[in-house]
Amino acid sequence: MNTIGKILTLTTFGESHGPAMGGVLDGMPAGVDIDLDALQRFVDRRRTGQTVGSSTRDEQDRVEVLSGILQGKTLGTPIGFVVRNTDARSKDYEQLADCYRPNHADYTWQAKYGIRDPRGGGRASARETVARVVAGGIAMQALSTLGISVEARVAQVGSVTDEREMETAIAEAQREGDTLGGIIACAVKGALAGLGEPLFGKLHAQLAAAMMSIPSVHGFDYGDGFDMAAKRGSEVMDLFGKRPDGSIGTVTNHSGGIQGGISNGEDITMRIAFKPVPTLMRDVPAVDRDGNPVTLQPRGRHDACVLHRALPIVEAMAALVILDNCLIKKTNGL
Amino acid sequence: MNTIGKILTLTTFGESHGPAMGGVLDGMPAGVDIDLDALQRFVDRRRTGQTVGSSTRDEQDRVEVLSGILQGKTLGTPIGFVVRNTDARSKDYEQLADCYRPNHADYTWQAKYGIRDPRGGGRASARETVARVVAGGIAMQALSTLGISVEARVAQVGSVTDEREMETAIAEAQREGDTLGGIIACAVKGALAGLGEPLFGKLHAQLAAAMMSIPSVHGFDYGDGFDMAAKRGSEVMDLFGKRPDGSIGTVTNHSGGIQGGISNGEDITMRIAFKPVPTLMRDVPAVDRDGNPVTLQPRGRHDACVLHRALPIVEAMAALVILDNCLIKKTNGL
Amino acid sequence: MNTIGKILTLTTFGESHGPAMGGVLDGMPAGVDIDLDALQRFVDRRRTGQTVGSSTRDEQDRVEVLSGILQGKTLGTPIGFVVRNTDARSKDYEQLADCYRPNHADYTWQAKYGIRDPRGGGRASARETVARVVAGGIAMQALSTLGISVEARVAQVGSVTDEREMETAIAEAQREGDTLGGIIACAVKGALAGLGEPLFGKLHAQLAAAMMSIPSVHGFDYGDGFDMAAKRGSEVMDLFGKRPDGSIGTVTNHSGGIQGGISNGEDITMRIAFKPVPTLMRDVPAVDRDGNPVTLQPRGRHDACVLHRALPIVEAMAALVILDNCLIKKTNGL
Amino acid sequence: MNTIGKILTLTTFGESHGPAMGGVLDGMPAGVDIDLDALQRFVDRRRTGQTVGSSTRDEQDRVEVLSGILQGKTLGTPIGFVVRNTDARSKDYEQLADCYRPNHADYTWQAKYGIRDPRGGGRASARETVARVVAGGIAMQALSTLGISVEARVAQVGSVTDEREMETAIAEAQREGDTLGGIIACAVKGALAGLGEPLFGKLHAQLAAAMMSIPSVHGFDYGDGFDMAAKRGSEVMDLFGKRPDGSIGTVTNHSGGIQGGISNGEDITMRIAFKPVPTLMRDVPAVDRDGNPVTLQPRGRHDACVLHRALPIVEAMAALVILDNCLIKKTNGL
Repeated sequence: MNTIGKILTLTTFGESHGPAMGGVLDGMPAGVDIDLDALQRFVDRRRTGQTVGSSTRDEQDRVEVLSGILQGKTLGTPIGFVVRNTDARSKDYEQLADCYRPNHADYTWQAKYGIRDPRGGGRASARETVARVVAGGIAMQALSTLGISVEARVAQVGSVTDEREMETAIAEAQREGDTLGGIIACAVKGALAGLGEPLFGKLHAQLAAAMMSIPSVHGFDYGDGFDMAAKRGSEVMDLFGKRPDGSIGTVTNHSGGIQGGISNGEDITMRIAFKPVPTLMRDVPAVDRDGNPVTLQPRGRHDACVLHRALPIVEAMAALVILDNCLIKKTNGL
Repeated sequence: MNTIGKILTLTTFGESHGPAMGGVLDGMPAGVDIDLDALQRFVDRRRTGQTVGSSTRDEQDRVEVLSGILQGKTLGTPIGFVVRNTDARSKDYEQLADCYRPNHADYTWQAKYGIRDPRGGGRASARETVARVVAGGIAMQALSTLGISVEARVAQVGSVTDEREMETAIAEAQREGDTLGGIIACAVKGALAGLGEPLFGKLHAQLAAAMMSIPSVHGFDYGDGFDMAAKRGSEVMDLFGKRPDGSIGTVTNHSGGIQGGISNGEDITMRIAFKPVPTLMRDVPAVDRDGNPVTLQPRGRHDACVLHRALPIVEAMAALVILDNCLIKKTNGL
Repeated sequence: MNTIGKILTLTTFGESHGPAMGGVLDGMPAGVDIDLDALQRFVDRRRTGQTVGSSTRDEQDRVEVLSGILQGKTLGTPIGFVVRNTDARSKDYEQLADCYRPNHADYTWQAKYGIRDPRGGGRASARETVARVVAGGIAMQALSTLGISVEARVAQVGSVTDEREMETAIAEAQREGDTLGGIIACAVKGALAGLGEPLFGKLHAQLAAAMMSIPSVHGFDYGDGFDMAAKRGSEVMDLFGKRPDGSIGTVTNHSGGIQGGISNGEDITMRIAFKPVPTLMRDVPAVDRDGNPVTLQPRGRHDACVLHRALPIVEAMAALVILDNCLIKKTNGL
Repeated sequence: MNTIGKILTLTTFGESHGPAMGGVLDGMPAGVDIDLDALQRFVDRRRTGQTVGSSTRDEQDRVEVLSGILQGKTLGTPIGFVVRNTDARSKDYEQLADCYRPNHADYTWQAKYGIRDPRGGGRASARETVARVVAGGIAMQALSTLGISVEARVAQVGSVTDEREMETAIAEAQREGDTLGGIIACAVKGALAGLGEPLFGKLHAQLAAAMMSIPSVHGFDYGDGFDMAAKRGSEVMDLFGKRPDGSIGTVTNHSGGIQGGISNGEDITMRIAFKPVPTLMRDVPAVDRDGNPVTLQPRGRHDACVLHRALPIVEAMAALVILDNCLIKKTNGL
């Protein structure tokens, strides 16, 4: 249940205030060049302190690869890796051991397991995404050798869609002890036609599951997405044409590069909606284990908006799904 | 790849104009009462001819259960079933063997497999969903013994959200040889807290994958979904309160009944966006295998809008996911 | 749990006295020629009435393919199939509804599910293997296009290893109302080097699981198998040499064509041990649900020895595993 | 492919001479008491230097648990762990980079991946089993709370079955630069009836796959195993009787505690055959990449017989399978 993927699988582990986060990326083809410095730079994009409104928890996030890569090349064996937790401040969370914060996973986790690690949200913390970014960064390097790239951008922060105004909006919310959500747009370029499984494993179904598994994500669509619901069939028809190289392409891309769950060679486009960060820097009304009201003072170090830090996470999840499907495609013929 | 689920798995098969559609529902607990007449009635909800704008292909959709149920009770063994295709009219599709329709899976399927069954769309036809409805109908009967219900409704057809105007809008589009999409809202009621796996198997990630695997679906969100992106954290906070029975509940439900990927006992709410039906009853510009333009005359029997027929499909997929997670939850403690 | 395989998966269903046995073979590559008449002949090898001591239940075992094959070629879609049960005689089993036969699955099934279909052993009947043979027969045809063949032979019946004496031994046991087990040897020829996953998915581990899943199988080994335990390292060393075509081969094959879980290009050899058939044609001491002793009269139609009928089952399981691994191997490089 | 299990899954990673071996044990129920000191002692049973003929590579095998256990209790989250490699001596293996040893995985690995880590056998080294023992040790602690124990013993070393003579036989083989294999017998006691899946997931099929995945294992049987092949049905009948507590048991246990793939409450008994260690301390004829003969001098530190060190490995694999099936059993009823 902590594993995603079919041929290329990622299994992750780690609690926010435990010794380390980590994972195992299995099924990576052998003989792929991996630049570990570039990988570290990719992981660094997710770190705190680089954008307005990000948490002040200062994790170095040094990636330690334990297996599967030798002299810069993948061996075909599982790639085990860890990222140590070095700046946890667990006492900020002592008040939380016996109460449930609104819009957090405290209550549901307790309902499910009957036990939880309250320190920093335990495994429910978005800190777990560091392992996804490590694995996804490796997948992206493999994809680049196939001419495939993945790029995400912040399309909306709160109700702001103009990039120049986003920083201001975040700073303002933060000043008021409040938080913002937003929308990330992601595009996969260079993917060949034929990726994805036409029934339950439709490419967009896999992408949806991967993106919806990122903390705080509340919505996913691809191509013209929810907007297509209000259109007529004649308005969203992607007519075929010939590309300059003679191959078949489409003139428009309302379909987001996927038809019937299978890629058609156009850009694969999708949107991912994030709810606002649930931890406010204000007094928050919560309940204890018995349902009695308590008031929580603001503690811990939290983001006012995670959209910019989430970009490499979205790219990582997209890369894992796309590479997995490149491998699956190899098995379609004898 | 034609299988969905973890403990409760559904595997389906069948081409639109082949002898039959069918499936295997495995992992159903033993000893559950199944009313096969009620199941048939559930499957009938998906049939053509019951709403304006539906296809005139007249399939009886008689469910034949081949195993796994004896004297009205599940045995714990796989439930195999078939639904015969009896009204296929394959010659309508002869013109399609060598060309690709826009917004259909003809081209992508060819790119993936190098071969395809052009008759009625083959396996890419929405006719495959009949197997989902059979399996989902069985799952719903099992859920009802747990006090859980699933209900979907058409929330939007084209740009129309008023139910009374939907029929008119569909009839109008149909008259013009055009088609409509729309949005279905679905709610799961009575689900206990603790369903869902907190990492990659978040309950909403599983639901998203299941819904996005339905033909024509282009978007999914849960709770306040995409609207949450524009809200502040303070605006979407679901404060806790005590329910009349003393248990812990939330006063509002912006979160759609899920926190951190795990159900919290409130209604699980989601929206599913459908693109308009891709087959127009007009001349359509397509291409042949070499990318040369051809014009397709309208042939075959198609829906102008599938939203109403899709209701039991959405309910079926939700039921399969929820029941699977009820079973998984049993393994959380020793 | 009724599914086997990774890329090529087989899911089966059916009770011995239900309407039909069947299955879904998913993941078959597209474009493979399948001769359905040859497939029927392969399935016929498993039928009763062809060897001494086989059951007199006379099933025609007509294979009905419902999907996935069009005009003699696979489509890449799941191959659904059924085989009707036409000669079930359920009243022979009425005495069994409330008691447990020794060495049968009656008691364990009841312990697991709390319910069971007593007619003909229900799903615990070896009749379920017909679905394996259908699927395996398709896999064998695909393998043959790769130059790979699978061949099983009866190596031992009871304590008899001389083929000419086997029939006599079976007839003698049958006369006494008794039954025999034995050993089947199976060889896969023409398999390329590099099949199998080196850790938990070792080729012989997959083969062992597949063979041990056949009813009545109690043991599996490969190469020199159990005999290797008593040998010294120096005695079982398969020294390398050059094959006539210049490729690397081994002079001997103690290792059974597998090193470190991966095929080395030599014949893959294995042995499968079957216990004697548990149903004797004698009065048998059993117990009722409360553990009280009862005596069962011989009823039903049963085999005195299943080894010869099991040959296509063993071949089918081997073929499924080998073809699956041929597909997996395609994903080892980018 | 480096993952085993259904609900309780173990994913491992690590090369023999890389920085560390490790794994992720996922699906462990929450709230189980784990004694880490006892776990370390269990892992120590696999260490070198405790029996005659074991390798002189001196690894401390300190288990570092990184997640999933807090204050001695499982959290229900994945248990990540590493065991550092501290005594690797890679230069012993320099001569092996370009040649293939007989009965080793050098050649097959190269055939599969086109690349390999020759240092200490890379991932093909039996050193990978340390991760299995860590995970299995945790599973055994969980099983003990259910009253289930797993115990393995060396039943045969070479052709010696008398325990008192085993040490002498190993010392003698070692003096001659030779190696021995043998047989381990393993019994699971206290397992309730109803474990195992009756078709492809038969309990003995799962056990077979798990045991056959241990390096050097060439055979598996359960109950009377291969010996049953030569017996008549009347000779191996396990007649039912009442246990002192009134429950139903069997008087004999030829069936090894499993009927129809499902446990019956008796001891689950099995045998695992190991081939002799492939590395001799003699000059060994090998080949280079082009198939030309080369002679390898004895290098590296190796075991002359691994049977005694393999005991905790066998127990670990049995424990993982049994606990997984205890969890699966919970899903059999609603």
